[in-house]
Amino acid sequence: MEKISLDELKLYIKDIMQHQPFSALLNVQLTRLEDGYAQLEIPFKPELTQQHGFIHGGVVGYLADNVCGYAAATMVGEVVTQEYKINFLAPAIGRHFIGKGQVIRAGKRQVICRSDVYAVTEENQEKHVATALATILPVSYQVKT
Amino acid sequence: MEKISLDELKLYIKDIMQHQPFSALLNVQLTRLEDGYAQLEIPFKPELTQQHGFIHGGVVGYLADNVCGYAAATMVGEVVTQEYKINFLAPAIGRHFIGKGQVIRAGKRQVICRSDVYAVTEENQEKHVATALATILPVSYQVKT
Amino acid sequence: MEKISLDELKLYIKDIMQHQPFSALLNVQLTRLEDGYAQLEIPFKPELTQQHGFIHGGVVGYLADNVCGYAAATMVGEVVTQEYKINFLAPAIGRHFIGKGQVIRAGKRQVICRSDVYAVTEENQEKHVATALATILPVSYQVKT
Amino acid sequence: MEKISLDELKLYIKDIMQHQPFSALLNVQLTRLEDGYAQLEIPFKPELTQQHGFIHGGVVGYLADNVCGYAAATMVGEVVTQEYKINFLAPAIGRHFIGKGQVIRAGKRQVICRSDVYAVTEENQEKHVATALATILPVSYQVKT
Repeated sequence: MEKISLDELKLYIKDIMQHQPFSALLNVQLTRLEDGYAQLEIPFKPELTQQHGFIHGGVVGYLADNVCGYAAATMVGEVVTQEYKINFLAPAIGRHFIGKGQVIRAGKRQVICRSDVYAVTEENQEKHVATALATILPVSYQVKT
Repeated sequence: MEKISLDELKLYIKDIMQHQPFSALLNVQLTRLEDGYAQLEIPFKPELTQQHGFIHGGVVGYLADNVCGYAAATMVGEVVTQEYKINFLAPAIGRHFIGKGQVIRAGKRQVICRSDVYAVTEENQEKHVATALATILPVSYQVKT
Repeated sequence: MEKISLDELKLYIKDIMQHQPFSALLNVQLTRLEDGYAQLEIPFKPELTQQHGFIHGGVVGYLADNVCGYAAATMVGEVVTQEYKINFLAPAIGRHFIGKGQVIRAGKRQVICRSDVYAVTEENQEKHVATALATILPVSYQVKT
Repeated sequence: MEKISLDELKLYIKDIMQHQPFSALLNVQLTRLEDGYAQLEIPFKPELTQQHGFIHGGVVGYLADNVCGYAAATMVGEVVTQEYKINFLAPAIGRHFIGKGQVIRAGKRQVICRSDVYAVTEENQEKHVATALATILPVSYQVKT
């Protein structure tokens, strides 16, 4: 795959966001993209809550996973998530939710990323609600012949 | 917390499913509940897909996490997920999606669960799409005084 | 890499066990090897304990990781561990310790394995002390040119 | 448990290091301990290598796990590791190996820690060889009666 610029990748991700029905359903926004870093935000809406009014863990997991994938994409192009591990730190209560993903190491066969999810409170404080560690696979790999 | 029967827990979970807006949005169904085992299903709908038409990883993660939580609940009552790790094995393409969670060990301070997610194809074959390992916290724990 | 037979792989692993100083230090034995399955054992010795007389978590982690690697090797040849996640279930007290690793799915770009570690008691009971989930990388992969 | 000072904890950990036969075997040294932070070092010795002359993954895992435990101990006293997930980034080749663990969030029921392992080269460069995310359990917890 040819390397594309950050600006091209931004457009590409925004396009994905609109054409992924699930991402559109969550109303996900790409709010920052730099070399080795990606940030997504999801505004609160009642449809995303669990029975206590918190944002559902599935939405938190979505953010943790996807910011890792996009952060990796800034360095190696097209990727898929191989696996991730997420720790929940606090209930996800807030006006909107931010996922921040950064590359720890980008290699040819794997990209290791770390991500954190924050709930932004009414007082505009970022509360740390989850942290994750992910292995992202560059799709340009193939088997030796 | 007093121990409740499996039948009571089933009703309780079905009630949660209806009152969790996010679970209602995903149209999640509880299809089996036994001691140490829980099974959830989500039917395909276009709103849950990513850009290639597969069910989004966030939905797969939802299943993997929640069947662990409910499997744990059959043994220790009310719980929260502390953390989980999920490996993606294959694209989630199918008519519906099944999460199967089972308790590996239930202790007073932690319940360890394993779960698997399957996509059920048009030919009614279960294709293994993800596997997970989770730590579930019984909420009845408290600090020594 | 050419595929080798299970018997050849057994000899190869036993050779590694003797030529890996750390494995020799732990006195690790390969006790079973089948398609998609590997079993290692470590006898108790006081040098492997922590301050309470249990086998140290590092030894348990060694078993959990390595049986995954060897189980994967039966299906895809040479491998390296990308990552693993391990849950500790109970103190590792016993006469010897068994790691059992099995392949969940072997692909060309990744092999997903699960493993369990048991402490064998004086009464010859296997007590489950840890469970793990690992991503193993076949080393025959390379980047598209 | 009464809270002890950092200096008391340092002495306690150094005492553990000497009385844990496995830690003594690895020749582990505690080189830093601060609120929410712990650092351990292991000097290279041939007994710790695998067949390619790298330090064995089991030793890397030992460092990643234990610095998390000691970092957590600075905040909540006595602990046990519930689980950890480790990603291997590069072969562990060097003169000595440093594990650095830090607390992400310390709660009453769980302490979440992140750790990194570095190989220090002949040129005194720190090469990042592994990263981990762990859940540590404060042992002072008990079940509600």
